[in-house]
Amino acid sequence: MEANLLAKKFLKKRVEPINVEKINSVSEMLSAFNDTSFQSRNLAKCADIYVKMLQDPDQPTIFLGLAGAMIPAGMKRVVSTLVRKRMVDVIVTTGSNPYHDIVETFGYLHYKGSPDMNDMELFRYGIDRIYDTLAEDTKYRKVDDRLAVLADEIRKREPDRITMSSREFLYVVGDLIDKEGIEKEKRNSFVWNCWKHGVPIFVPALCDSSIGLALTQHYINCISKGLKPLIIDQIKDNTEIFNIKKSSKKTGVIYIGGGVPKNYIQQTAYLEEIFGIPNRGHDYGFQITTDRPEWGGLSGCTFKEGISWGKEKHTGMYTACYCDATIAFPLIVKAVLERLGNKWTRKRKTKN
Amino acid sequence: MEANLLAKKFLKKRVEPINVEKINSVSEMLSAFNDTSFQSRNLAKCADIYVKMLQDPDQPTIFLGLAGAMIPAGMKRVVSTLVRKRMVDVIVTTGSNPYHDIVETFGYLHYKGSPDMNDMELFRYGIDRIYDTLAEDTKYRKVDDRLAVLADEIRKREPDRITMSSREFLYVVGDLIDKEGIEKEKRNSFVWNCWKHGVPIFVPALCDSSIGLALTQHYINCISKGLKPLIIDQIKDNTEIFNIKKSSKKTGVIYIGGGVPKNYIQQTAYLEEIFGIPNRGHDYGFQITTDRPEWGGLSGCTFKEGISWGKEKHTGMYTACYCDATIAFPLIVKAVLERLGNKWTRKRKTKN
Amino acid sequence: MEANLLAKKFLKKRVEPINVEKINSVSEMLSAFNDTSFQSRNLAKCADIYVKMLQDPDQPTIFLGLAGAMIPAGMKRVVSTLVRKRMVDVIVTTGSNPYHDIVETFGYLHYKGSPDMNDMELFRYGIDRIYDTLAEDTKYRKVDDRLAVLADEIRKREPDRITMSSREFLYVVGDLIDKEGIEKEKRNSFVWNCWKHGVPIFVPALCDSSIGLALTQHYINCISKGLKPLIIDQIKDNTEIFNIKKSSKKTGVIYIGGGVPKNYIQQTAYLEEIFGIPNRGHDYGFQITTDRPEWGGLSGCTFKEGISWGKEKHTGMYTACYCDATIAFPLIVKAVLERLGNKWTRKRKTKN
Amino acid sequence: MEANLLAKKFLKKRVEPINVEKINSVSEMLSAFNDTSFQSRNLAKCADIYVKMLQDPDQPTIFLGLAGAMIPAGMKRVVSTLVRKRMVDVIVTTGSNPYHDIVETFGYLHYKGSPDMNDMELFRYGIDRIYDTLAEDTKYRKVDDRLAVLADEIRKREPDRITMSSREFLYVVGDLIDKEGIEKEKRNSFVWNCWKHGVPIFVPALCDSSIGLALTQHYINCISKGLKPLIIDQIKDNTEIFNIKKSSKKTGVIYIGGGVPKNYIQQTAYLEEIFGIPNRGHDYGFQITTDRPEWGGLSGCTFKEGISWGKEKHTGMYTACYCDATIAFPLIVKAVLERLGNKWTRKRKTKN
Repeated sequence: MEANLLAKKFLKKRVEPINVEKINSVSEMLSAFNDTSFQSRNLAKCADIYVKMLQDPDQPTIFLGLAGAMIPAGMKRVVSTLVRKRMVDVIVTTGSNPYHDIVETFGYLHYKGSPDMNDMELFRYGIDRIYDTLAEDTKYRKVDDRLAVLADEIRKREPDRITMSSREFLYVVGDLIDKEGIEKEKRNSFVWNCWKHGVPIFVPALCDSSIGLALTQHYINCISKGLKPLIIDQIKDNTEIFNIKKSSKKTGVIYIGGGVPKNYIQQTAYLEEIFGIPNRGHDYGFQITTDRPEWGGLSGCTFKEGISWGKEKHTGMYTACYCDATIAFPLIVKAVLERLGNKWTRKRKTKN
Repeated sequence: MEANLLAKKFLKKRVEPINVEKINSVSEMLSAFNDTSFQSRNLAKCADIYVKMLQDPDQPTIFLGLAGAMIPAGMKRVVSTLVRKRMVDVIVTTGSNPYHDIVETFGYLHYKGSPDMNDMELFRYGIDRIYDTLAEDTKYRKVDDRLAVLADEIRKREPDRITMSSREFLYVVGDLIDKEGIEKEKRNSFVWNCWKHGVPIFVPALCDSSIGLALTQHYINCISKGLKPLIIDQIKDNTEIFNIKKSSKKTGVIYIGGGVPKNYIQQTAYLEEIFGIPNRGHDYGFQITTDRPEWGGLSGCTFKEGISWGKEKHTGMYTACYCDATIAFPLIVKAVLERLGNKWTRKRKTKN
Repeated sequence: MEANLLAKKFLKKRVEPINVEKINSVSEMLSAFNDTSFQSRNLAKCADIYVKMLQDPDQPTIFLGLAGAMIPAGMKRVVSTLVRKRMVDVIVTTGSNPYHDIVETFGYLHYKGSPDMNDMELFRYGIDRIYDTLAEDTKYRKVDDRLAVLADEIRKREPDRITMSSREFLYVVGDLIDKEGIEKEKRNSFVWNCWKHGVPIFVPALCDSSIGLALTQHYINCISKGLKPLIIDQIKDNTEIFNIKKSSKKTGVIYIGGGVPKNYIQQTAYLEEIFGIPNRGHDYGFQITTDRPEWGGLSGCTFKEGISWGKEKHTGMYTACYCDATIAFPLIVKAVLERLGNKWTRKRKTKN
Repeated sequence: MEANLLAKKFLKKRVEPINVEKINSVSEMLSAFNDTSFQSRNLAKCADIYVKMLQDPDQPTIFLGLAGAMIPAGMKRVVSTLVRKRMVDVIVTTGSNPYHDIVETFGYLHYKGSPDMNDMELFRYGIDRIYDTLAEDTKYRKVDDRLAVLADEIRKREPDRITMSSREFLYVVGDLIDKEGIEKEKRNSFVWNCWKHGVPIFVPALCDSSIGLALTQHYINCISKGLKPLIIDQIKDNTEIFNIKKSSKKTGVIYIGGGVPKNYIQQTAYLEEIFGIPNRGHDYGFQITTDRPEWGGLSGCTFKEGISWGKEKHTGMYTACYCDATIAFPLIVKAVLERLGNKWTRKRKTKN
């Protein structure tokens, strides 16, 4: 009986059976998910943590880690919305995300296909497949050529400038989109929106992408002509993002997938640890992932594990939702927008 | 160049970047997902296939396979809505789903917990954990006792009736809920709604659940007193569901998870194959699963594989969405309800 | 510095880089895995726990839960070895495992295929696909017919016996294999070895398998002739396995996959809880699974969760290895055999 | 009947039930897996493809992609064996693999822990957790400091050299290990073995690792002193690996996990496509992964998808085994070593 009384402390909040008939919006769906279980509840927590991050009067700097191929997945406007409304302050991404974004601003689209297509046939037709999505290889080549020329132009414009961080290069790409991109696609481009709204984009593994391949064309071309090519200085990126972290009173992190973007944002907190700035783990965080901790990789590791490293604080708010990002990410963003109101834009004292 | 022309046939439908700012409902979200990629597109297809199933003038019989612990997950009203609106005709489930449903109709709830709780402590307090959800063990015991007595009553009421299919037993349970269940919870109970609306519930592995444990109490008790216990005749279930399949012009299947419910519904089509009724695979199907084909199990197998067996037709419409059901299932049902209109109820010529 | 001293208690056992050049057997590989990390270490733990179970002087009763389609996977001799050497005492399985085992004893084999085959073509040729494995549908039909006749024979032989547990039926099937099975395959059949060595096989969801379909043929045939069909009494199975559990001083569990077999073995401990026998959780356990806890289902749940229910003891030894069973299961069994010696057979005071 | 005859062409190779009692080595286990199903068969195929790669008289250049944290996992000697025996020609890796390797050569070990540890407590004690493995944070700091000084030394030694590819930097690190590493650990270090045997190590995202953090210390320090820091020129890496690919008649790829290493090796073939060198996809490939294609990311994508891009050839030999690398990788390497003989070393006409 006494055990029963003690048990009560654990049995306070009922699981509320969700009534979809009464739900009128995505936000209401996610609110109801707060009282269901398993991954729906975690999805609800992600939205809640995001709202808390955004409304924290200390204005945490919000880092968005973007892995995968989110643009062929149709997610670029979701990111652009976050940028326009100042709901993220820094983006760290694989090279493929800005690359595919640029491709579309040049009017070269991605198309719906299927994972069961005949890849030998696609190869013959010059079509590249990304799971259930298709692209024209020749169009990719045109973009590569333009980006290679862009590097030439940078070198010509500023002959004394030999190195650039990936962030600086992506800013120049934003400028290119502004000048040469198709109007309609430009508005939806997250690279262009970042350029316009002062949100830095870091691509730590820039060489590992089609942007990197374009820069390789430029590089080989320069060398063959005895010219000095543009050098992407990845450690400069580290100092830049470190400065952002250091000057932020608080920070929040959003991981769409894992990979380099997640680890790179994680390590900004760890870098401070190294430089003797104590207790600087990120204050808020949520992750959408289909990976899992049991394989020991950083992509699937838990926020809890990050606490041991000082990358997260034990007093922080974190959650992970195990779900494909193409489902969870638009739902979370939509729910947050509904809660904050259509006109809402985050006010930032300072630009990052 | 010619290749380019041929390529065109593959490049017809653009991936449309989703604009969450313009979306006003769950249905619109899922419609937009039709033009995104990866699992969001598959989620959209599930809703589309469901609508097609429901609007097919041949009125396919719709089988819902329900694995997992969907009631502690808060999903019972979603199922009840489908039953009330005649959007499913037959339910095949694990024993735990009706069991937890009954528990709640008796006023014993499930509570929100966390996967990181101290299970030794919970054990001391008589609390059972299901991932992030909690229940009181003593309350489960009360329900077990009532179900054991129910079996006693059945035997007394009809002394000549020694066997019952699981479907028949679940109908009696529905009746019990109607008489003894708490009003508020009753309305939301899927077992009660099935009882009320004539939707049969099959539990092929009834012994493998707390209902089975209650029947074991009854059984041991009868044997000790020299009485004949109630026998659940699982092969009778097979003949019953076979008759439903046989008398249906068309069939559609919905798999929430895999396990016995999926296989059991799959095999209704295969049973017909065995009895020499050709070409009787299910006509429509969608599955929400977190399993995958690579392990060779039936839970994760594709609809495509089912075609080789004759369980599915190569002319049918099928899709699988790899996602936790607590996210995908309510979204699909909500989107379908919005498309069909609030007042819509499926008209059925005949009761199953 | 003090923290450093305290830290030492956590830093005692080094991760030892595995040297595959020095390894001479599967057992040595798994021993080395004890000092590596992630799932290789968990695999090593499974073998260690199995050895401990087998060498416990209290002779725990060992339950093997067998999900999936392990016979088309080529795993039947692994199970047969365990049975012959008395390394398992009770088997709980899906119906497909004994069914495919019977099929092979009749000389109808499974063949190597590929997951990318054209399933429409396979259907036309009467070939059933199980991921990368094939079978002839007409051969399955012959076995079904024989099993249907077996049920007829049982009814004729013992006209007063109307019900049987699944365990009893599987014993009769073992006898059928002994009389009619092909000699070579018989030796490898796990159903036959169980029959010969007195290891009971429980199939809680017998109706949900081709054996169930064969019994359905028998059933429908009997009804149409006005005869009483054989009834599989699943609750009798519960009383039988409950008696085994109750009479065992200790118990160990092995889960190859999840599904009904895992839950059914788990609930034997819970059944004792219900009958007021306290503290009766299983003492040893290991699970090979590709499922995960985050979806809230029983298949993927942890042993730790089972402690809250009393299905496991907090003093017990448990581990889970996240790996496809077709890799992990033969490795564990081989390593254990090497450690115990080729001639070793477990001595059992009593038959179960 | 005719269908039966046609069916025969699909039913040629039986699934052979594995007999673990007759198996005497890891190689025999994997040979037997060739005739089982699901992931065990895929594991067997990986070993077979590896042997074919190694014995191809055209001497394909073999690229090893190494993601994850394989050194805390205890896998460094497996990689070192491959390097010493010339079984790989090029390594592409995350930064964490060489970093943890260096750490151990300095005598700072990784320790066995558990995923359930209290991370707040670990943080207080200066212990970093990687799933079930532990490390001392202060030891990591010492290595970071040494690496930062190494960069200083490089700049001092060659004042005119401002840039280096990651490959060049890793070579210098190999030299450092040779001079300052602990003898016993040095022999097992894969970085040292690569240095000794002329196997280049590429780390495309070097900034995204503790090596990158050390270089950031160096960088910030230089800037503060008005000195020019060492710049890691990632596009130079691209030209270097491109030259290796271009000069190779054939190529084989091994992916342990996905991430940047997989994509980076994939794109070497694509780079040739861009430079107008047709039909240059990799000729052999196998991947060990726990990711899956359905999320649309490059880590989980199939070799089949790569064919559409020209990254793989439709005439090539490829397979993927879905399994944790800490299990599959040592098994494959061991089986291959047994097949080739203990003394076997791959003869290479030329150094890469």
